[in-house]
Amino acid sequence: MNAEPIMKPYVIGLDLGGTNSVFGIVDSRGDIKATTAIKTQGYNNVDDYVKASVDALKIIIDQVGGIDKIKAMGIGAPNGNYYNGTIEFAPNLEWGHDGVVPLADMFSKALGIPVALTNDANAAAIGEMTYGVARGMKNFIVITLGTGVGSGIVVNGQLVYGCDGFAGELGHVIVKENGRSCGCGRNGCLEAYCSATGVARTAREILNTTDEPSLLRDLNPDEITSYDVSMAAEKGDKLALGVYEFTGKLLGEACANFAAFSSPEAFIFFGGLTKAGDLIMNPIKKAYDERVLNIFKGKAKFLISGLEGSSAAVLGASAVGWDVTESAK
Amino acid sequence: MNAEPIMKPYVIGLDLGGTNSVFGIVDSRGDIKATTAIKTQGYNNVDDYVKASVDALKIIIDQVGGIDKIKAMGIGAPNGNYYNGTIEFAPNLEWGHDGVVPLADMFSKALGIPVALTNDANAAAIGEMTYGVARGMKNFIVITLGTGVGSGIVVNGQLVYGCDGFAGELGHVIVKENGRSCGCGRNGCLEAYCSATGVARTAREILNTTDEPSLLRDLNPDEITSYDVSMAAEKGDKLALGVYEFTGKLLGEACANFAAFSSPEAFIFFGGLTKAGDLIMNPIKKAYDERVLNIFKGKAKFLISGLEGSSAAVLGASAVGWDVTESAK
Repeated sequence: MNAEPIMKPYVIGLDLGGTNSVFGIVDSRGDIKATTAIKTQGYNNVDDYVKASVDALKIIIDQVGGIDKIKAMGIGAPNGNYYNGTIEFAPNLEWGHDGVVPLADMFSKALGIPVALTNDANAAAIGEMTYGVARGMKNFIVITLGTGVGSGIVVNGQLVYGCDGFAGELGHVIVKENGRSCGCGRNGCLEAYCSATGVARTAREILNTTDEPSLLRDLNPDEITSYDVSMAAEKGDKLALGVYEFTGKLLGEACANFAAFSSPEAFIFFGGLTKAGDLIMNPIKKAYDERVLNIFKGKAKFLISGLEGSSAAVLGASAVGWDVTESAK
Repeated sequence: MNAEPIMKPYVIGLDLGGTNSVFGIVDSRGDIKATTAIKTQGYNNVDDYVKASVDALKIIIDQVGGIDKIKAMGIGAPNGNYYNGTIEFAPNLEWGHDGVVPLADMFSKALGIPVALTNDANAAAIGEMTYGVARGMKNFIVITLGTGVGSGIVVNGQLVYGCDGFAGELGHVIVKENGRSCGCGRNGCLEAYCSATGVARTAREILNTTDEPSLLRDLNPDEITSYDVSMAAEKGDKLALGVYEFTGKLLGEACANFAAFSSPEAFIFFGGLTKAGDLIMNPIKKAYDERVLNIFKGKAKFLISGLEGSSAAVLGASAVGWDVTESAK
């Protein structure tokens, strides 16, 4: 007489970026079973964006056996507030920059499944805990090195959201008194040095203030990107290597201060800059070891994300979906 | 046939300091029912220290109706490790400076009740949550301003202990590049500026580097203490007030960085320096408001400990006892 519960082996992940919205249907081992994408911009309003998303999703949902196979959906989005399921004043979203968008509720109504939303760095942290290098860890910090610098902090096995849902903004810890101007309107933030644009800025500063020969001198200084720096560094360009050393030193010193906060088992780095591998990780570890308080020395691991390249952000977002399902039990 | 469970309305708190060990028996509302104390030093070994403690405790345990009335014991101690119930390499304890002392286990065996131990700043945080101004709060940071600067961080209603039990060392966040030497062997720690000795050091620096008239000039500069500074400030001495402004500014700026970590509902200040009241709290708030990231502005409260003066540390320690009882259910 007892009906078997319908198996729901999948979650949907949405990596909501400024340009593209990438969807994936993911199983509990982190295998992506189906994927699709739409442009994030170009809609008159958020209703049209959600409608276009659902139209695209229907096709891949059918591919895995229909909505009955889907437990929940997780969204990783800029300025995402986990507590409210909202995107709040996101400067890069034309339908989200001047208000509070209840995106989790909207998707939940449209699809008929639970939906949770958080910012992209927190999604990365949940992704690492669910499918990545942080499996089994209860205390770790993910630092995302991309266009900006973000972070997802896990303490006692839980994401740190703080009193308002916005905790974990380690890119905006001030690391240099009267330092570089930051997009947030203040000066000296970690992000102003260690984001992709920060790395390019460091290269330009060294080019302007030294005579050191470099492959980068062949480029228009105003157009140098972090990609150019990485290309030059791979060829052994000393100036470019110096950029990584400077960037890694600042990150390592910042991590030493973060250790005094939550004494994590690991710092996990995620995003474009990590492609430089040892070129960036070695200076981070060296500066950390030199700077950290004695009792923390040698305890934290320094790892690169275990989520696979282009799908890492979708995996992270999908992991947020497992969370909402469990808390809704 | 069912025996009524014996009521256990009390916990023992032990504030284990470098000089004195103060014991209190406390009820769930934070009323201290009985208290006693012994010297911390002057014992050949830790066994003798525990024996002397238990002898002193027996008298006050009898006063409240015997050991059957006691649920558990909580200890706040320097270099206390909550996970292991140990005191580890505590420089100021003659029976604890060169090793790992399993003090929680020793008291548990001697008294026959569960015993939990943590460092003094974490005990203060649990005390605020149990009896003080943090009742009902899930995310807050206690900063202790005493001989040193310590901290107890609460996230999602739980103390942050980290991977090793030593998280929450915000006194050793480096706030000044190439700054003052600190007792930890590094330079520029918050503690080197905002502890009692840091405050006295600031006063000496201003006396040495300016001609500003001050009541403090009547004293031997080498013997100036934070108490002298507070006395002068209360009399309106400008130089002494400047010391508080400098100290508060550094604390407020540090708190702005801490907000980026855990976005607490409140920062709670505990210890001697808070007796200065607005003289220290106003500069803290001003610097915080000027420095904190936009999204956190106006969210955190700045409070002074709600635990009563001389018994605050005992109350904090006792609160750790309620915790162990609950987790052992």
